[in-house]
Amino acid sequence: VSAFGPDHLPYGVFRTRGSAPRVGARLGDGVLDLAALAADGALDEDPELFAQPTLNPFMAAGPATWSRVRAALRGLDAEPVATPLDAVELLLPVAVADYVDFFSSEHHARNVGAILRPDADAVLPNWRHLPVGYHGRAGTVVVSGTPVRRPRGQRRGPDGPVYGPTERLDAELEVGYVVGVPTAHGAPVAVDDALDHVFGAVLVNDWSARDIQAWEAQPLGPFLAKSFATSISAWVTPLEAIAGRRVAAPAQEPEPQEYLREAPWAYDLGLELEIAGTVVARSNARHLYWSPAQQVAHLTVNGASLRTGDLLATGTVSGPGPAERACLLELTRDGAEPVTLDDGSARGYLEDGDEVVLRGELLAEVRGRII
Amino acid sequence: VSAFGPDHLPYGVFRTRGSAPRVGARLGDGVLDLAALAADGALDEDPELFAQPTLNPFMAAGPATWSRVRAALRGLDAEPVATPLDAVELLLPVAVADYVDFFSSEHHARNVGAILRPDADAVLPNWRHLPVGYHGRAGTVVVSGTPVRRPRGQRRGPDGPVYGPTERLDAELEVGYVVGVPTAHGAPVAVDDALDHVFGAVLVNDWSARDIQAWEAQPLGPFLAKSFATSISAWVTPLEAIAGRRVAAPAQEPEPQEYLREAPWAYDLGLELEIAGTVVARSNARHLYWSPAQQVAHLTVNGASLRTGDLLATGTVSGPGPAERACLLELTRDGAEPVTLDDGSARGYLEDGDEVVLRGELLAEVRGRII
Repeated sequence: VSAFGPDHLPYGVFRTRGSAPRVGARLGDGVLDLAALAADGALDEDPELFAQPTLNPFMAAGPATWSRVRAALRGLDAEPVATPLDAVELLLPVAVADYVDFFSSEHHARNVGAILRPDADAVLPNWRHLPVGYHGRAGTVVVSGTPVRRPRGQRRGPDGPVYGPTERLDAELEVGYVVGVPTAHGAPVAVDDALDHVFGAVLVNDWSARDIQAWEAQPLGPFLAKSFATSISAWVTPLEAIAGRRVAAPAQEPEPQEYLREAPWAYDLGLELEIAGTVVARSNARHLYWSPAQQVAHLTVNGASLRTGDLLATGTVSGPGPAERACLLELTRDGAEPVTLDDGSARGYLEDGDEVVLRGELLAEVRGRII
Repeated sequence: VSAFGPDHLPYGVFRTRGSAPRVGARLGDGVLDLAALAADGALDEDPELFAQPTLNPFMAAGPATWSRVRAALRGLDAEPVATPLDAVELLLPVAVADYVDFFSSEHHARNVGAILRPDADAVLPNWRHLPVGYHGRAGTVVVSGTPVRRPRGQRRGPDGPVYGPTERLDAELEVGYVVGVPTAHGAPVAVDDALDHVFGAVLVNDWSARDIQAWEAQPLGPFLAKSFATSISAWVTPLEAIAGRRVAAPAQEPEPQEYLREAPWAYDLGLELEIAGTVVARSNARHLYWSPAQQVAHLTVNGASLRTGDLLATGTVSGPGPAERACLLELTRDGAEPVTLDDGSARGYLEDGDEVVLRGELLAEVRGRII
């Protein structure tokens, strides 16, 4: 999907034995130490920008700095200075400020609506007018590779709620955009300026406990069903690396309000969801209805500020086909039609020990095993 | 409501002209500089704990430190060392980690349900089984006194959604609990241990745009209707100061799940909501159904961690009587029955220029004017 060549060059935070965390760039199977490169004069930046436990200071520095650093790295003869990937520990790359999860795939909204509200319109009346979203828990965003403990909670039982481990543990394949440049409170971001605030992209596994969600989520939305863990890539792909994947998208009907209006577009990035060794869904970010620019414009139209480290996820990226449904709720119709894995076993929902892997073109994988 | 006597002693962050922000305690009309007191040896603590732009390091230090500092301050002859309140600028006291808003007043749930869902049960089936809540936007929590800009957004119109300033701007009178001691991811907090993690309490004005909320909030809950601003007190009241206000509460029926079970209790703290100079509602924190300990136990039962600076608000604290409905949605039945102010004017919802003031016994006021 990506060999981490010089056209990709995502950023992360790493540590070698006994050393302090610092910013690195991934190249092939190695990690470039940006703090060391800056100290050696190979990057025309203050090494302190990279001698940091998160990407946040670098992300806050803005697009001119991002472009300059990327150009310098692409011009390096990098082989001699890379640390082998297997000699480093990768940390959560971003200190997440606020985490917002959108619901920007119409296929996902339609599939889920049809399952959960069979007697009503699958897609609600507001859906094509605004990017529906909600705030998630920033404090439980974890880096790829972190094990995920099956959460306990309340779910509906035959004689009232019962308490115990979730029986409907799901994964959601999403893309996330990380904010670099903050804004002042009270100043909305125009849709055409939105990407100037976005540092890069990750994959996001928005783990979900569907039985907890079904019981708790009225009237204020998902809460404990999602807050136990959200996994993101260890490497953040700079927007410059995926700029060439921008493609035109179909016209939005009805035409959105002016603050959301732009020439429709999406990123053409193939995505896949693997469960216990079997790829169960293949999708593409181009299936998303709302663009990341529209998500930023909507999030700020009421005057809400952006902070460095804000994470804006797309919601499950499902496509139109049956093999493009990017969570088990959709794939198995809430467990009623289990998927068969390559080893012959079936899954309605995740079992203990299952490892879930998200992959995407020019995006770094997200792994997590259920314990 | 409080003269800020030696039994109160809330903590905040202040700055005098030309100096760095630091932690203070409020005593009468003065501010005690804790960094200076520690440097002088009057507090047996490292001055660095207080020479900080937020309370977070002090909050993270834990109950033993909180008690020791409070006892030392109560033993001081403080008059000579207090800076007059009018010579200082008060800053947001807490770096808010995650902000969770609960829905813990049954009177509020019932009143709102009856207005918004007149054809259904006012209180949903899950309400008495768990503290319903959702995540809000931490990045737009502001300190008392910060003006609040009327937000723009989409609302339902006769021929589809329209965009513009909200026409149903509301205030909500809430109490908020601030987490001091963090927890490890994956380790739920027992209800009996929950208050060991809570540093103190504030008042919270959870500003709400009801027309934006009505249009956007299905199926994932409130989003832009709440995220434009949330105002909190400049002073955080330590739990020790309100411990004497604990009172027994009626039994919870049905008995909650074991992880939420405790001897029912609440804080007896009078509260009031003032709009444009008129007190429009008086309520009391003892009307809350779910305790702060139950809120913490529920929030973490799925393994979600607490971080220093997490803010857990109660939701609107309404009481049983008509003058105890603590937001305009309830007081005016969504604008249909305006309240009359002392100057003879009427309010269905807030007008530009209105100042809203929340007050509470042993809690510091929250002010905000609509601009």
